[in-house]
Amino acid sequence: MGKNKNVTFNDIAEYTHFSKTTISRYFNNPDSLTLENQQIIADALEKLGYKENKVARILANGKTEFIGVIVPDLYHHYYSEILDQILATYETYGYKFLVFIGNEHEETERRYIEELMAYKIEGLIILSHTIPSKELADLNIPVVTIEREDEFVSSVNTDNYAGGHDAAILLADHGCDVLLHINSNSCKGTPSYGRVQGFTDVCRDKGLYHEVFLRNLGVDYTATYPALVSIMDEIENKYPGHRKGIFASNDNVANIILNILVRKYGTLPDSYQIIGFDNSPISREAVFPITTIAQKIDVLANEAVSILVAEMNERKKRRPVLSQQPVHKTIPPVLICRETTEGHNCFIENKRSH
Amino acid sequence: MGKNKNVTFNDIAEYTHFSKTTISRYFNNPDSLTLENQQIIADALEKLGYKENKVARILANGKTEFIGVIVPDLYHHYYSEILDQILATYETYGYKFLVFIGNEHEETERRYIEELMAYKIEGLIILSHTIPSKELADLNIPVVTIEREDEFVSSVNTDNYAGGHDAAILLADHGCDVLLHINSNSCKGTPSYGRVQGFTDVCRDKGLYHEVFLRNLGVDYTATYPALVSIMDEIENKYPGHRKGIFASNDNVANIILNILVRKYGTLPDSYQIIGFDNSPISREAVFPITTIAQKIDVLANEAVSILVAEMNERKKRRPVLSQQPVHKTIPPVLICRETTEGHNCFIENKRSH
Repeated sequence: MGKNKNVTFNDIAEYTHFSKTTISRYFNNPDSLTLENQQIIADALEKLGYKENKVARILANGKTEFIGVIVPDLYHHYYSEILDQILATYETYGYKFLVFIGNEHEETERRYIEELMAYKIEGLIILSHTIPSKELADLNIPVVTIEREDEFVSSVNTDNYAGGHDAAILLADHGCDVLLHINSNSCKGTPSYGRVQGFTDVCRDKGLYHEVFLRNLGVDYTATYPALVSIMDEIENKYPGHRKGIFASNDNVANIILNILVRKYGTLPDSYQIIGFDNSPISREAVFPITTIAQKIDVLANEAVSILVAEMNERKKRRPVLSQQPVHKTIPPVLICRETTEGHNCFIENKRSH
Repeated sequence: MGKNKNVTFNDIAEYTHFSKTTISRYFNNPDSLTLENQQIIADALEKLGYKENKVARILANGKTEFIGVIVPDLYHHYYSEILDQILATYETYGYKFLVFIGNEHEETERRYIEELMAYKIEGLIILSHTIPSKELADLNIPVVTIEREDEFVSSVNTDNYAGGHDAAILLADHGCDVLLHINSNSCKGTPSYGRVQGFTDVCRDKGLYHEVFLRNLGVDYTATYPALVSIMDEIENKYPGHRKGIFASNDNVANIILNILVRKYGTLPDSYQIIGFDNSPISREAVFPITTIAQKIDVLANEAVSILVAEMNERKKRRPVLSQQPVHKTIPPVLICRETTEGHNCFIENKRSH
């Protein structure tokens, strides 16, 4: 038999002298055959060099074992790391992932979802922000979102509020008398706005002097840098002689603030403490490693897939009980102390194992 | 008809009074029907709310439109960016990507390839380094590799030799009298060893004083930092008073060298010039933006998919002419000048559009 020729059910039937129906049963309902006959067919498959065709099996049992994933981009480490962790769950659950990058174009993402539905995906994980959760719920397959609007579908989110709260407490504990938060003015209505709220609430509760800068920070490094130069000028002029604690909306912002100060003073002056958010590589690789609030990306990814698998399994039952309410999980972040804050009253950094 | 019930060929046949064979022809060979009959069936599909089932179509024409991708990890920006660009080719060619992260485990990657073959992928893109190209060629489907051993399969690689060459020339032009290259001692036998060769050859040809440090640089930031502290001590002791030009194996190494110097001197001293490799985000976001040799990741990704699509299309012909020789493409890198080298004799940086 030629190397390129696929072994068909016909070939197997001919070789074993069973009917094609029996061969088909072997693949789709093996328990309907005796163990002896199962063995005969198994031996024949090996002899003939049969290659499993999952596509054919899908048609038989209707289950593709495909999960669709839509990510906004892979340029930001947050997204590439979470995709990495999602793909790694193949080892646990065996689901395969069809991945699309949406670049936050609503119509493009709608087309991708249509394509995914045509491939009979069993579930969908959405990290992009464009399509309302109501519309996702109407797809009528299990959907889990991560860190985005999630009213009508199941979701996993970081406890951003706790992150903002912890950042303010740490800065105050480290003797900062002016607490500053810098964030994008477009963060309202997203889960990450919790960072602003957590920070503000604890400052108000404890009577800490604070100011929140919600500004247009641009979309990339080239745009963010000058925006932060101007904010830092403002801060330097407004609060001379104070010990300033800055909580930045993310590690990229924290790194630029650090670079502005180091380029000006040749070091990070004692009058500044800085905390970022995300624990992205830049926080570790900055000229002075940056204290940060880490999202537990492995937990976010694993919880998302685990919620999805539970919903997909339920639908495979003969009488599925589809839950009325979406499941929402919140994952607490972890404070990681490095050189931009002093003192030792926070968790010890866990080294990334790879 | 209930919302969840799939519309079958039977339903369409009943509704239109055509035979199931006619309906099947509509999907697989529409030109065999009159335009009028095509219209009747199209109208019926809309009335009945028929949803396209690509899985069923695959069985009819044998083409899955799947490409398998195996990436070592998504932690390194190089891999996530190249995956980003590969996935984006969906817009051009319509192929869908089944993605696996291999983490450089040979046996795991072999299992992934088996799984991909069971899903009848039409082609395979490999970025991981574990499985020999001979074995990949024996899969008997089109395979393209990117920046790895590629003797028996088609490939796309950066012209690393030209990168090493250009780095040495730039450092010499900028008045460095000692040219240093720092790289991992494990780079031999990989395409990236071309960086060492290009650097060394031009230094020899032009009689430039140079030294190459091939050392164990560890696998992550925590291990690389102390390794580089010790190399920099050695350099400082050995070459005082010289203008030292350092060509680092990649931007992460360049950034650590820069951080070591800035933490020691409060700035990047005039006695040092630094060039990295890759144009990864850290090169732009470093305390002094780092001059780097950029791999054209978009070109690498697009060339890889385009070679693969050509080979896949050839196999769809009635009488495919399978080429005897794998195709190897080499993409020249681009020098991007920033603040760690002085002068203006290199290309102007192009801003990333997103």
